[in-house]
Amino acid sequence: MGWKGVLGFEYGVVQAPLGPDISGPELVAAVANAGAIGFLRAPDWETPDYLRGLIKKTRTLTDKPFGVAVVLAFPHEENMKVILAEKVAVLQVSWGDVREELVHEAHCAGVKVVPQVGSFEEARKAIDVGVDAIIVQGREAGGHVIGQDGLISLLPRVVDLVGDRNIPVIAAGGIVDERGYVAALALGAQGICLGTRFVATEESYAHPMYKRKLLELDETEYTNVFGRARWPGAPQRVLETPFFKDWKSLPAHESEINQPLIGHSTINGMVRFFSLYS
Amino acid sequence: MGWKGVLGFEYGVVQAPLGPDISGPELVAAVANAGAIGFLRAPDWETPDYLRGLIKKTRTLTDKPFGVAVVLAFPHEENMKVILAEKVAVLQVSWGDVREELVHEAHCAGVKVVPQVGSFEEARKAIDVGVDAIIVQGREAGGHVIGQDGLISLLPRVVDLVGDRNIPVIAAGGIVDERGYVAALALGAQGICLGTRFVATEESYAHPMYKRKLLELDETEYTNVFGRARWPGAPQRVLETPFFKDWKSLPAHESEINQPLIGHSTINGMVRFFSLYS
Repeated sequence: MGWKGVLGFEYGVVQAPLGPDISGPELVAAVANAGAIGFLRAPDWETPDYLRGLIKKTRTLTDKPFGVAVVLAFPHEENMKVILAEKVAVLQVSWGDVREELVHEAHCAGVKVVPQVGSFEEARKAIDVGVDAIIVQGREAGGHVIGQDGLISLLPRVVDLVGDRNIPVIAAGGIVDERGYVAALALGAQGICLGTRFVATEESYAHPMYKRKLLELDETEYTNVFGRARWPGAPQRVLETPFFKDWKSLPAHESEINQPLIGHSTINGMVRFFSLYS
Repeated sequence: MGWKGVLGFEYGVVQAPLGPDISGPELVAAVANAGAIGFLRAPDWETPDYLRGLIKKTRTLTDKPFGVAVVLAFPHEENMKVILAEKVAVLQVSWGDVREELVHEAHCAGVKVVPQVGSFEEARKAIDVGVDAIIVQGREAGGHVIGQDGLISLLPRVVDLVGDRNIPVIAAGGIVDERGYVAALALGAQGICLGTRFVATEESYAHPMYKRKLLELDETEYTNVFGRARWPGAPQRVLETPFFKDWKSLPAHESEINQPLIGHSTINGMVRFFSLYS
């Protein structure tokens, strides 16, 4: 049946959940209306009513299937109830083990479960609990990156692990154009998941300056300079901005804690202040 | 004309130079006779007569083209003279800038120059000095790894950089089967370069126990635990052996210096003793 068949959309392209409050209803609906599938990003704190609003707003903009993504490392029990009650097409989860009970509850609600994994071992655990598809993320990916393996080595191993089970494997990380898509298919994937490629769209909530920097800059680096106190063990791939070049060698014992506040932003309806390195 | 046309062999498969004294005449000749192209590895010290012997022995085993690889980080002036005087088909170089004069001398001797690079910037410099082809190595590669980019993101960028110049791009790192080959072609490469895949061959000089471990073990890790005093700044991808798991967190200030000798080996005709972590 394949990936598209599992989820009922047309093309094998998936829009990844982006940073907090980047992939909102407008982007997810635009992706759905174009025949791909996209994920709203559930907030990183319990806010079920707000999340229900996001889902309902997306439904006013499209009648095609879409999903919601939950980062399991953050509070999510109440948000999860809303996702299942609203019966979105897909629940995407990452940064935590997929529990068998969650898969069971989701299936009872008619919701497919698609984890994103960054290692062979994570893939094995996910397959064992009966997920519907699996997104394999290579270390090339942007944003917080959980794994250490390059996509070209990890992807075929997961494809072999899945074998003839009906669990489509989706490739994520470093794919930016048709060449990457074809390469992913050659490695055994049934579709591709793009994140950064969707940040610099009109519909994403990213700041215009960030969208511009994505187009202007060529190089990225894998680091843990940013937010290492709030979310330890979650390194990230970032743009090589002049700021990053100045601070990339921040000593390991320093973090965003006790740094001066340098700005604020409204994220999922909450005003948040940011310190240096957060 | 493409990669094969440049070098006069049949298939787009390249056998990488392996660790010191692993890819000797028997392996390189077997690869050549099979229609691919392989590299002898020049010793990491000046030993021109010994190297000439390797080249001559290889010629007794095949009449097909083959190459010699030089790690520019180690002494190589005298070895280089032999390589050019013997007019092997290809000089492969890595871990150092390719000088324009070297390319000129090689071309005067009828020897093609093919650097292996691990970054966009290294590729740019190599193209500027007129190399004949370029091997792009992703961080997935085994052994000492110079770059930080995954192959799936670096390769198409170098292909775009080359543009319509007649400089074939060869993909290296994490490719182990036909899926990786096709993926590399999709990303714009004209051939693939395999290293580890050739270590566990009958013809390679690797120890039988190492060949067996390559088949038995599944996971690798990127580290700088081994040989960090002899060759700083040259991290490596290694098998996750029980020994490595015990020592992977070796403090940064410790190295193979002052460690007990634990064995010896004859490498390129010289008996070498090895300390722990070397």
